[in-house]
Amino acid sequence: MDRAPTIKDVAERAGVHAATASRALNPATRAMVNARTAGRVHEAARALGYAPNSAARSLRTRTSSVAGVIIPDLRNPVFPPIVRGIEDALREAGYMALLGNTDGDPERERELVAAMRGRQTDGFILATSRRDDTVPGSPVPTVLVNRRIDGGGVPSVTADNAAGVHLLVRHLAGLGHTRIGHVAGPRSASTGWERYRAYLDAITSLGLDQAAKAVEFAEAFTEAAGHAATLDLFAANPGLTAVLAGNDLIALGCYSALAELGRTVPDEVSVTGFNDMPFVDRQRPPLTTVRIPHYEIGREAARLLLERIGSPEAPTKSVVLPVELMARASTGPAKPQDS
Amino acid sequence: MDRAPTIKDVAERAGVHAATASRALNPATRAMVNARTAGRVHEAARALGYAPNSAARSLRTRTSSVAGVIIPDLRNPVFPPIVRGIEDALREAGYMALLGNTDGDPERERELVAAMRGRQTDGFILATSRRDDTVPGSPVPTVLVNRRIDGGGVPSVTADNAAGVHLLVRHLAGLGHTRIGHVAGPRSASTGWERYRAYLDAITSLGLDQAAKAVEFAEAFTEAAGHAATLDLFAANPGLTAVLAGNDLIALGCYSALAELGRTVPDEVSVTGFNDMPFVDRQRPPLTTVRIPHYEIGREAARLLLERIGSPEAPTKSVVLPVELMARASTGPAKPQDS
Repeated sequence: MDRAPTIKDVAERAGVHAATASRALNPATRAMVNARTAGRVHEAARALGYAPNSAARSLRTRTSSVAGVIIPDLRNPVFPPIVRGIEDALREAGYMALLGNTDGDPERERELVAAMRGRQTDGFILATSRRDDTVPGSPVPTVLVNRRIDGGGVPSVTADNAAGVHLLVRHLAGLGHTRIGHVAGPRSASTGWERYRAYLDAITSLGLDQAAKAVEFAEAFTEAAGHAATLDLFAANPGLTAVLAGNDLIALGCYSALAELGRTVPDEVSVTGFNDMPFVDRQRPPLTTVRIPHYEIGREAARLLLERIGSPEAPTKSVVLPVELMARASTGPAKPQDS
Repeated sequence: MDRAPTIKDVAERAGVHAATASRALNPATRAMVNARTAGRVHEAARALGYAPNSAARSLRTRTSSVAGVIIPDLRNPVFPPIVRGIEDALREAGYMALLGNTDGDPERERELVAAMRGRQTDGFILATSRRDDTVPGSPVPTVLVNRRIDGGGVPSVTADNAAGVHLLVRHLAGLGHTRIGHVAGPRSASTGWERYRAYLDAITSLGLDQAAKAVEFAEAFTEAAGHAATLDLFAANPGLTAVLAGNDLIALGCYSALAELGRTVPDEVSVTGFNDMPFVDRQRPPLTTVRIPHYEIGREAARLLLERIGSPEAPTKSVVLPVELMARASTGPAKPQDS
């Protein structure tokens, strides 16, 4: 192209109307455009070398805006892809992310929210909420990611936890397991609670109710807590042939606890996780789990927040993204037992 | 304690002078206090229920400050603990972190720095620099983390890469290996370059120079790039009995490439990594590597930045933190060969 590219060239390449492209490139209006479309427009602009004056200006001046992102601990492998997805979608819309970790401490969360509001933060994405929370950021636009609160009223983006648990329980039942225990995540987190409720539901649906009391709640979504809860679970229910863990870290705790008890996985006990975090496919044995689209969950949360910032009075939406069963070597046929 | 706790109570509990405690709790002066001391003071204040008016005010008003943290990709397991360390140390000093990912794209880095400066960012911590960079954030206070630039002049916090490589090479030599190849990280990154230089150095020191040409540079610090480079390395040097990989992800690429070539690890070829990222101790085989104190590197980088914000004219410091050899099952005795 000899001439300088125009907004029409950008729109054509991105496959959108010129008005949409213009809106996507203008910091004042980009929140009105679907984040993925905006991303496509920005990519097209970059590929063509289009210099959108107003967008370029927004990068150099103070018009770019900030959203607060508050999570329990970035070192939990679930969060890096979520935060990356949030940051990508925010940036496409001219926003930036202020990041804070709480270690699950509600007081620290309140402090962070207050400090971020002091920095004129336009909205919040929280991965920290407990089920019984009222959301501290209100009335600033707020979106929950990977979490819900029982009272509702706050937009949220989560994975389909119930569907994931049903997939796992059906997978285990298909392998002949009837005594399936559950090392649940903490009751206070919606992820822990939803998976626990879905476990009861799936077990009942399959007529395996007698196992439905074989539940221990881990104190946290960690390997150590999973280890401790698994020991308790098997002390009370030695006949279990399968354990559904609340997440992958808890499942790794099951592995070490079962090794301590002298039970082999999967020959004597099948184990499943939840999340498909990096490298669980390389564990010994590779972990059967449910894949959650963490990066997409992050993007979607940012998109929802931008929508709310654009129209604070819009109805509260909850977005649930689909999950996928990843069957690996940690689950196998149930061993016949004499009891 | 019946009466409200005073600054003296806080100082006593934290084991510091009252003046230090006061400085640590005052947003205007806390950058003058060592970050760990400040953390102790804040913990003591919290434990005693001390309400430092000025600190509490700073959390609710606009006096809290912001530092920009720019990394290649949060999904690389090296960065979450670094970013968490940065965030913890910043928060203790009343600062917050604006986070951005660049995917190693220098243009995106420039845009991010410009956008963050537009948000009145007080300083930058960059994990993205290439060796030949001039640092884009100057003259705003800037610290490099996990990276250095050849020209110097910018404070940096890195691990002792050279020492780590020497530990690994000596470990391999001690197992009888004399033909030790290197799948290096990218030349453009100081981590890749420093480890490559240290490899040459260690090999020469041990009189194993004939192997010193057995080097392939991976195009990136990724498993896929490590896989490709390992295939090239063995095509040119089939007699190698050990491979020193530029980092853990590259080492995992060595694993898969060697499997493709029908060579077992460690019986036929020993493999080492660098970083000790989560779960490499659970790989098959568990990976021998060098542990880097990533969280501490992050804390130290934040501390250095706060120092520079406090006194921009202070001399430029480089901090190098020690590393530790983690010998595991991916390295074993050299197999006698007939060549």
